[in-house]
Amino acid sequence: MNKKASADKPAAFESISQWYMETDVVIVGGGGAGISAAIEAADAGAKVIVLEAASDAGGSTALAGGLIYMGGGTPTQIACGFEDDTEEMFKHLMMASGPNADEDKVRLYCDESLNHYDWLIEQGVVFKPEYYPHKHTNTPNEAALMTTGNEEAWPFIEHSKPAPRGHKPQIEGDHGGIPLMEKLIASAQSKGVNIICDARALTAIADHEGTVKGIVVRIDGQEQCIHAKRGVVLTSGGFIMNTDMVKEYAPRLARGNYPNGNPNDTGGGIRIGIGAGGNAINMHEGFTCTPHYPPRQFLEAIIVDETGQRFINEDVYHGRLGSAILDRPDRRYYLIIDSRHFEILERPPKGGYSVAGVGDTAEELEQEINLPEGTLVNTLNTYNRFAAEGKDPVFHKAEKYLSGLDQPPYAAFDLTIGNGAFYAVMTFGGLDTLPTGEVLTVEKQVVKGLYSAGRNSAGLPRCADGYASGMSIGDATFFGRLAGQSAAANQ
Amino acid sequence: MNKKASADKPAAFESISQWYMETDVVIVGGGGAGISAAIEAADAGAKVIVLEAASDAGGSTALAGGLIYMGGGTPTQIACGFEDDTEEMFKHLMMASGPNADEDKVRLYCDESLNHYDWLIEQGVVFKPEYYPHKHTNTPNEAALMTTGNEEAWPFIEHSKPAPRGHKPQIEGDHGGIPLMEKLIASAQSKGVNIICDARALTAIADHEGTVKGIVVRIDGQEQCIHAKRGVVLTSGGFIMNTDMVKEYAPRLARGNYPNGNPNDTGGGIRIGIGAGGNAINMHEGFTCTPHYPPRQFLEAIIVDETGQRFINEDVYHGRLGSAILDRPDRRYYLIIDSRHFEILERPPKGGYSVAGVGDTAEELEQEINLPEGTLVNTLNTYNRFAAEGKDPVFHKAEKYLSGLDQPPYAAFDLTIGNGAFYAVMTFGGLDTLPTGEVLTVEKQVVKGLYSAGRNSAGLPRCADGYASGMSIGDATFFGRLAGQSAAANQ
Repeated sequence: MNKKASADKPAAFESISQWYMETDVVIVGGGGAGISAAIEAADAGAKVIVLEAASDAGGSTALAGGLIYMGGGTPTQIACGFEDDTEEMFKHLMMASGPNADEDKVRLYCDESLNHYDWLIEQGVVFKPEYYPHKHTNTPNEAALMTTGNEEAWPFIEHSKPAPRGHKPQIEGDHGGIPLMEKLIASAQSKGVNIICDARALTAIADHEGTVKGIVVRIDGQEQCIHAKRGVVLTSGGFIMNTDMVKEYAPRLARGNYPNGNPNDTGGGIRIGIGAGGNAINMHEGFTCTPHYPPRQFLEAIIVDETGQRFINEDVYHGRLGSAILDRPDRRYYLIIDSRHFEILERPPKGGYSVAGVGDTAEELEQEINLPEGTLVNTLNTYNRFAAEGKDPVFHKAEKYLSGLDQPPYAAFDLTIGNGAFYAVMTFGGLDTLPTGEVLTVEKQVVKGLYSAGRNSAGLPRCADGYASGMSIGDATFFGRLAGQSAAANQ
Repeated sequence: MNKKASADKPAAFESISQWYMETDVVIVGGGGAGISAAIEAADAGAKVIVLEAASDAGGSTALAGGLIYMGGGTPTQIACGFEDDTEEMFKHLMMASGPNADEDKVRLYCDESLNHYDWLIEQGVVFKPEYYPHKHTNTPNEAALMTTGNEEAWPFIEHSKPAPRGHKPQIEGDHGGIPLMEKLIASAQSKGVNIICDARALTAIADHEGTVKGIVVRIDGQEQCIHAKRGVVLTSGGFIMNTDMVKEYAPRLARGNYPNGNPNDTGGGIRIGIGAGGNAINMHEGFTCTPHYPPRQFLEAIIVDETGQRFINEDVYHGRLGSAILDRPDRRYYLIIDSRHFEILERPPKGGYSVAGVGDTAEELEQEINLPEGTLVNTLNTYNRFAAEGKDPVFHKAEKYLSGLDQPPYAAFDLTIGNGAFYAVMTFGGLDTLPTGEVLTVEKQVVKGLYSAGRNSAGLPRCADGYASGMSIGDATFFGRLAGQSAAANQ
């Protein structure tokens, strides 16, 4: 190791005379995907080292709400009185994954969902069999189960039968990632997995044929070589914290003001994988959300842009709304309520929206927030006319939210990007992999000895317009397990 | 060469005992970028071979309208009575390139535009100094000059001073690519460039340090190795003809029904570059257009989607309209005219739009094309009310197109994807390069000996929403020249 390691230049296996450590499987990144991979690799009899760049394991999963998308009739679904069907889950996830869906992964993920649930229980994860019935970003109590995506919203509702599939590990409020990662880390450690923190992977070690045989890692300021006899699993997350990469690969996400992840989501594992011959796909896509609920009363509001027109059914998942807004990021956006919903003015909405204007009439509000004359009035008239009949043939919001907006005065909240509204963003692009976690080249050949899962790879979540909470952690834990199994079996 | 060559496995330079040919510079692809590179490399004293997969050189440039985006006061602009300014051109192209603009390339392209014009003239290209004043996809006569993008449309008009910058090599109608490539190919051949057709490049040849030293090519069914002492220039186009790559990298473009290019635009050069250590960026983006003009009367129409609402200023470049529609590809779209424009019904519009319905009143048309009751009527009322005052505060269409749509009967043309409307698509993603054409790794290091330009690289055109006709060929010829210079200078 004479030169400084760089991800685009794998170190030559044949040139390494001294190993810092030797093991069977090295896993880069100790989040949901990496620890799941470690558990499976250890269960398969492999010696496993996890390299974690931060001072503690957990990754972005530990910081997240912890929802896991599972269905087909999980014990929690059944205990809460819901029926679900693997095929309905498959249909929904195919639609949710958009035009770049990986059907093989969606198929396997759905077919194995009940087994994955059981595996999580085996690791000690607890789901309190209670259903939270409202639209929310997470269950605000200890309840496990809620509907987390667009299942009940048009057009998804027309293509598959909805069921609540978000499962939160037991904890009060929005912190399900903590108990999830605590249980997974404890399980991994009980199986002898060696988690080394403050260890930043720099580049792969590959032999002259390109087979990955280890990793160069910086520990205590020194570049060290670790020999991974069976393989290296890259699970170090996405790149939302790397502003250069976001600008270059996913410029749409640059408009977000809340990068969703941990400070090490800088795409290091993606770059190491590319340097070792892997190929990255779907790099432009990502999660984008502005949480227009709670309060759930906001679903009875309408959202208009600067043309005074609606543009979406307001009962969609907040990620679908965020994506529609990021498609036209330079417009102004307003959420309009009438006096029936004024109790909301008492407490600031979760999305950080300020009040843009109020008006004793629709005309006055329209003028107050500088919309073209007559446009908001027209929009409200049309909306109210149909709402009175319990329908929304224009944007297809569900009847239960069509209370009408015909009780002046009116108020408008400002959802415009840059005016204080909260826009969370997270990347979906990463290494191209088989469902087994094997990393593929640009010609769809396997890079021997290299595996990836979680946001380091292009997994189940592919599309901002269809994403549901729980798909990313569901994907990371499930396909992380497969990657760990594959690496352990590579001897 | 025992194994079959694959783009993801560069051949080892040290293992090659027999060369099929030896030269200074090998150029992969004989289109606008490649032939421009060849001319410059030959001018710099290099021996040059161009490998063309088709049976004749010309590439997608030869099939194109041939418009070249140039400005800052070209002789053609001046002869036609137009002033232009390099800074105004720069401002427009930065905005046109969108959030992923490569400012260094835009800067150089603008600063050198007059020199590039002169260079084209030196190669024998002729621009007839005549201005075509209407909105069109190309000049329908022999005129060279027209406005080809969004320069005069909101919001671009507010950020830079428009000028016509599309320059078509002299020919009648939409075939400017033919005289352009004829002149460039003749120039290259006069300088001793060896153009070998029916020659498909397969993979790079690189030494143990990763420096590119040649190319493996299939000629007459045999895999042959060509030694390129100074470098290899990849200019083999984008990947719009590769349905797998489109689905994987640019799924939005999969909805187009007219791939814009030649059958060899299969991304081969991009994959060879990735295999040799280069990195691909901006892979999701591309040109998308539905030519809603000519007839130019259609600019006086409004375009609505299935909500009965407008969504764009209809006087935008057709690529910006196409992009807005591909953002919501599953909606129905209609172009609405009134009786003042019924002469258009006599001849089919260029976009292949069928008549979706007619109505003696707006209400009747609304019902006929199944829009929610009152929505189209509202939209027309608002549009006409403002048009009568010569303004469009909702979508900002220019006053000259605001003739109003208040003379029933009405008719609607169907712009819905899949109903016969023409949607052309072309990819913008490719190898990450410096303005010099040097190919970069994922860590922004130069891959020695490897260069790229045109749609094989991520060049000037970055963004469907802002693209103007002439940017792609302008980019290909200009940065192709720089890549050829760089390769020739690499000794």
